[in-house]
Amino acid sequence: MTERIPTAKGVIAAAESVAAILPPTPLLPVEINRVRAWVKADSLQPIGSFKIRGAWWRLSNLSPQERAAGVVAVSSGNHAQGVAWSARRLGITATIVMPHDAPQVKLANTRALGAEVVLYQRPGEDRDEVAARLIAERGGTLVHAFGDPWVIEGQGSAAIEAADQLGRAPSRIIACCGGGGLAAGLTLGAPESAIHPVEPEGWDMVGQAMAAGAIVHAAPDAPKTICDALQPPATKPINLALLKGRAEPGVTVSDAEVRAAQRFAFANLRLVVEPGGAAALAAALAGKVPVDENTVIMLTGGNADPAAFAATIAETA
Amino acid sequence: MTERIPTAKGVIAAAESVAAILPPTPLLPVEINRVRAWVKADSLQPIGSFKIRGAWWRLSNLSPQERAAGVVAVSSGNHAQGVAWSARRLGITATIVMPHDAPQVKLANTRALGAEVVLYQRPGEDRDEVAARLIAERGGTLVHAFGDPWVIEGQGSAAIEAADQLGRAPSRIIACCGGGGLAAGLTLGAPESAIHPVEPEGWDMVGQAMAAGAIVHAAPDAPKTICDALQPPATKPINLALLKGRAEPGVTVSDAEVRAAQRFAFANLRLVVEPGGAAALAAALAGKVPVDENTVIMLTGGNADPAAFAATIAETA
Repeated sequence: MTERIPTAKGVIAAAESVAAILPPTPLLPVEINRVRAWVKADSLQPIGSFKIRGAWWRLSNLSPQERAAGVVAVSSGNHAQGVAWSARRLGITATIVMPHDAPQVKLANTRALGAEVVLYQRPGEDRDEVAARLIAERGGTLVHAFGDPWVIEGQGSAAIEAADQLGRAPSRIIACCGGGGLAAGLTLGAPESAIHPVEPEGWDMVGQAMAAGAIVHAAPDAPKTICDALQPPATKPINLALLKGRAEPGVTVSDAEVRAAQRFAFANLRLVVEPGGAAALAAALAGKVPVDENTVIMLTGGNADPAAFAATIAETA
Repeated sequence: MTERIPTAKGVIAAAESVAAILPPTPLLPVEINRVRAWVKADSLQPIGSFKIRGAWWRLSNLSPQERAAGVVAVSSGNHAQGVAWSARRLGITATIVMPHDAPQVKLANTRALGAEVVLYQRPGEDRDEVAARLIAERGGTLVHAFGDPWVIEGQGSAAIEAADQLGRAPSRIIACCGGGGLAAGLTLGAPESAIHPVEPEGWDMVGQAMAAGAIVHAAPDAPKTICDALQPPATKPINLALLKGRAEPGVTVSDAEVRAAQRFAFANLRLVVEPGGAAALAAALAGKVPVDENTVIMLTGGNADPAAFAATIAETA
């Protein structure tokens, strides 16, 4: 892995690069427990998630030689689509390692974007080993989903966009958190804002790492979560270094809270939000993080499985 | 009813008034049968539909005396919320006549916005008579859902916004059509664009009126449609006068085509669109209207009944 350090300047450059190809995603008003705040609807990106930001910034910084050799990524589905979308646009070959139980919609979308998908067993196989083996066999650059300086800078572009749209620095940004790529990027992109990472119960690898001051690995018997996008085996040192002592303590949400947030987004925002994309909204609605009129809540993904989404919205909590 | 004639100048003024209180709704890229076109997501308005435009323009043009006497509107639900939202913001009392079988979400939202809801039986009672009786008893100004010059001008503001966002006049605007308020407004707001009204099968009161050159009333045995927002008893002379000879011939869509469009919006745009709000998209996807890179497809509403929406997206057509 590279020694490059992500910087605030890098986030600003990433935001310029992203703005050149993608219109800003809407910042929409939302009433949370009688307080008017804002949602940043990155679920409306072309691939349905914020992951397009980091993937684009990473791939557009590859050298001509690196571009020619292609890229390999590991992803439960949204980073996969971000890499596939960016690779197609830049004429780069992309191979994506995805769990066999990734939502069908994410597998299908990744393939439709022209990437080759290699499946691995979850739990069982180590996805990073599968990717390393592919690179040993075929060559290519690994585009890590969160532990990569360019990816972190790219994700941070959401903060620059949101501040532009809000007309001032957000008081706080509440962000769904898997490996910590977005949260780390936001600390750089929004230096004046409190950053609140929100993780699923039992999968708070970032929150636990910030509290311990060291990488913490997911328990082998970690509970199931509906947030398929937020199940990293662990965060990475590059993310922890940016988050520790800078981000607010981690917050966790239950499946029931996530489903309630999906229903809220359906009825009040008319947006389709996937479970992992609704975690930050869930924390805000449950009163687990403070919300004021300058608060920005990230809706990070909208690639919802139709049957699961139907069951969630048909349920009257 | 007033003698005022809606004008292109009026639409421009309406667009300025709307822009002062509501940010533009997103214009999002969409791929329709391998052609890249645009959707105008008015389903993301605060009340979940474009109806906020016309209601706002009508109510903000009331005299102080008229404001004091309150307003009465007749609506299946979206105009209701537009009037209620605008009335609350302007400090005007609003009474809304709604069908007893309007979607619960629309009844609840209208009441939550502070309006008084008076129910009528559909079919059976004449909703305009119910409204006229209320006005005779209590006074107040009728805010017609589509047959009103200010309402028409306000709806037309969507065309001004879309052209601004597109950077040029749309080649064509495909619009969901009930009574013809939006379509009539678009003819004024987009003088260089072809305007395509799309109606549910059996409820093409605008298409039939344009073809006949006279008002046509819905048949007593008109088929059921899932497009609850697009079931007017007839269009009005003011709408027909603007549309006849100017709009393209009307197009109709089936319930199955509308549901397919809702699924498309769910999976590809991550947007919740109600049946009546998906009619224009349905016509585009079914190849019933031409689509090119300067085509704008209006998504007019997102107030979907959860159970019905769940059934639609769970279905694999």
